[in-house]
Amino acid sequence: MRIIIVGGVAAGMSAASRAQRFDPKADITVFERGHYISYGACGLPYVLGGEVDDWDDLVARTPEQMQGRGIDVRMLHEVTGIDPQARTVTVTDLGAGRTFTEPYDQLLIATGVSPLYPEWAKADLANLNVLRDIHDGQRIAASLPDTGEVVIVGGGYIGLELAENLCRRGLSVVLLERGAAVARRILDQSYQGRIVDELTKHGVDVRCGVNVEALISEEGRVTGLHTSTGIVRAGAVVVATGVKANVGLLRDAGATIGATGAASVNARQQTSVDGIYAAGDNCESVHRVTKKPVHIPLGLTANRMGRVAGVNMAGGDSTFPGIVGSSIFKVFDLGVARTGLTQAEAEALGLQAVSIDLDSTDHARYYFDSQPISVRLTAEQGTGRLLGAQIIAQNHLSAKRIDVVAALLHQGSSVHDLFEMDLAYAPPFSGVWDVLLAAADKLSRKV
Amino acid sequence: MRIIIVGGVAAGMSAASRAQRFDPKADITVFERGHYISYGACGLPYVLGGEVDDWDDLVARTPEQMQGRGIDVRMLHEVTGIDPQARTVTVTDLGAGRTFTEPYDQLLIATGVSPLYPEWAKADLANLNVLRDIHDGQRIAASLPDTGEVVIVGGGYIGLELAENLCRRGLSVVLLERGAAVARRILDQSYQGRIVDELTKHGVDVRCGVNVEALISEEGRVTGLHTSTGIVRAGAVVVATGVKANVGLLRDAGATIGATGAASVNARQQTSVDGIYAAGDNCESVHRVTKKPVHIPLGLTANRMGRVAGVNMAGGDSTFPGIVGSSIFKVFDLGVARTGLTQAEAEALGLQAVSIDLDSTDHARYYFDSQPISVRLTAEQGTGRLLGAQIIAQNHLSAKRIDVVAALLHQGSSVHDLFEMDLAYAPPFSGVWDVLLAAADKLSRKV
Repeated sequence: MRIIIVGGVAAGMSAASRAQRFDPKADITVFERGHYISYGACGLPYVLGGEVDDWDDLVARTPEQMQGRGIDVRMLHEVTGIDPQARTVTVTDLGAGRTFTEPYDQLLIATGVSPLYPEWAKADLANLNVLRDIHDGQRIAASLPDTGEVVIVGGGYIGLELAENLCRRGLSVVLLERGAAVARRILDQSYQGRIVDELTKHGVDVRCGVNVEALISEEGRVTGLHTSTGIVRAGAVVVATGVKANVGLLRDAGATIGATGAASVNARQQTSVDGIYAAGDNCESVHRVTKKPVHIPLGLTANRMGRVAGVNMAGGDSTFPGIVGSSIFKVFDLGVARTGLTQAEAEALGLQAVSIDLDSTDHARYYFDSQPISVRLTAEQGTGRLLGAQIIAQNHLSAKRIDVVAALLHQGSSVHDLFEMDLAYAPPFSGVWDVLLAAADKLSRKV
Repeated sequence: MRIIIVGGVAAGMSAASRAQRFDPKADITVFERGHYISYGACGLPYVLGGEVDDWDDLVARTPEQMQGRGIDVRMLHEVTGIDPQARTVTVTDLGAGRTFTEPYDQLLIATGVSPLYPEWAKADLANLNVLRDIHDGQRIAASLPDTGEVVIVGGGYIGLELAENLCRRGLSVVLLERGAAVARRILDQSYQGRIVDELTKHGVDVRCGVNVEALISEEGRVTGLHTSTGIVRAGAVVVATGVKANVGLLRDAGATIGATGAASVNARQQTSVDGIYAAGDNCESVHRVTKKPVHIPLGLTANRMGRVAGVNMAGGDSTFPGIVGSSIFKVFDLGVARTGLTQAEAEALGLQAVSIDLDSTDHARYYFDSQPISVRLTAEQGTGRLLGAQIIAQNHLSAKRIDVVAALLHQGSSVHDLFEMDLAYAPPFSGVWDVLLAAADKLSRKV
């Protein structure tokens, strides 16, 4: 059994490990075009901020460790084509400049996503960067000015995490967002403003409704941006305007690409082409609340898809259970989390949704470090079926309570079920009625 | 409709509020034998430690506020008998020394629990106390010595919380526990030792396997204890050796008392006697995992039972959903939580249970304030049905993750379900595979 895996980060290395464990005799080769495998990409902003000491700390396993387990890892090797009839891939050794073909029985394409470059950002300047991998992170660190502003373009997860972390380095941070608020695709409108408030409180200059139109550069460095509201000076720029799935290889091989732009796979992570699997950020997954394919590239999903693909390629039988769209991030002190659908998303899908907001405290109100927490809970009118939740917690760890709702979304539970839960209580942890119970109580009287 | 409620703390006041809301014309009287109503008893240790500023902070509603809502609250009134045929109660006004009878249509007995006094502790000494209510807390505060040891007898929730909080006051704390370890009825044996370690690390002198045999007193004050391992000197003693349900009134009225020693009630909180309800710490509840009645007196249960009883007494229809045995407490930095059954409890019930232990970190391992967290997960052999979980987290808030398992126990989910959950991930909140997912992965391969 000859298994080839293209891409050596979350999905690819999970697949390699699982395939090797399932069939220790399988011949497994991983081609990675970059300098690192198996690193925690979600940790990249935190190395810039100093909460993680070193880039190498993000690396879970080195190529040497994988070689020691009998997995052949080839760094700086880019796969440029697939011949699904011959079952071969074309590979370029970027170091040696040599191109060759390799046969496979089972092939996994785990090529992840690439940052979207707006037209104005298509220039090769030392202090104009994206943050996709460790190499990018190192480039950003090297490009940061001693004085002046760092401009982040884009107010999604990465832009927001970067804003906090570059602030922690003592830099003046300007965050430019095209839309009316940050976290537009993450939270309902009423909660977006709170993120802006938290950023502003910590000195980030947040400017929403600003379109970047062109770069201003000088001697190979960006020095400013022309925007819809005037010129913004910049000592460095980081572009965080979204990502697109890397599906070129799959498309060329004839595999079905979904309407989301990501690879369409079945629950076993198989593409429409025999012998070719896909896993990770370049794939769609089924949303358990809507039963529809979505493209929500996140770390746990990628790791889980990789495990499933690895087992199946090695002759096992594993299925991906779908997702419920859970995510969480930190912006300074705030923890922000969501799962399922927002009210806006539910409405866009034609669901009869009803939401309530509940503002409370994360501990007993009388306990000394009790902090504000707000929950927005959404359910289906009539049935009471839970559709989603959003949490903003001033003590960031308390946002992890979103997992209770995530679990119930998996089980198709209702808001009435949630209200009945025997959640753990003591004053240093919650109120007698945990904020989730209080929210369920309020919503159950409205559905 | 004339409703009488005996006991004005968690269950009693919840019942009064709900009954009044359901039927604003109901004539509702609450008899409370103590000085306070509607206070957060779980917060008592934290006033002693200073995490809560003042005893009054624990009080959610005053008698005056309840009177303002049309609920007649009589403080220092003790109900001493029930005539279920005549539907009257006998009441003593402790202030005036007057006894009278009052008629009722619906009666709620919400008399809670009383501390167990071992034989040796049956003495009236200023610095020998229990911690059941605000009055006790004030007595303890007044009795604490400037120098010398404070001895806590009993290593359950209250003893452990007291140990931390009296330490915070700068006192020398000795904790005496009869059994081989503390938290014996809360956790499996392997986790009990960790609590001892945490106490010891913070300077508490923990002595297990020690039986107290007699008091040593002088001039109305306890000065030491005779124990099975010698004399222990004491500047003050707090007895925390457990509680018993206050069911005397109910028993005398002919109501069924369960094998646990607490009142037997149906899901509507009705006792076996027509017109008499019971709610709160003096009641049994149904454990959703075992389907059996248990007596686990805790704050959320009491509040929820009170709401149910209040609605029903006022003519509505509400049912108590049962519990899954969730609880949580803090011992210095440690958060400790459990839900469902321990391995030992499952075995004692004749269940084929299997448990695994997983030691991990609560954030991504590379994130700066990542702290150890251990999860013990228990499921039924063969079916994989989840039976329970125990968590010990060095960052106390992370123990609240127990709620995910509590929610799944409610839904009768399996360990395989848990492993499939899309829990929220970012480095400041968890590893890619949240510790619960990692534990489920490990356990799912053993059931």
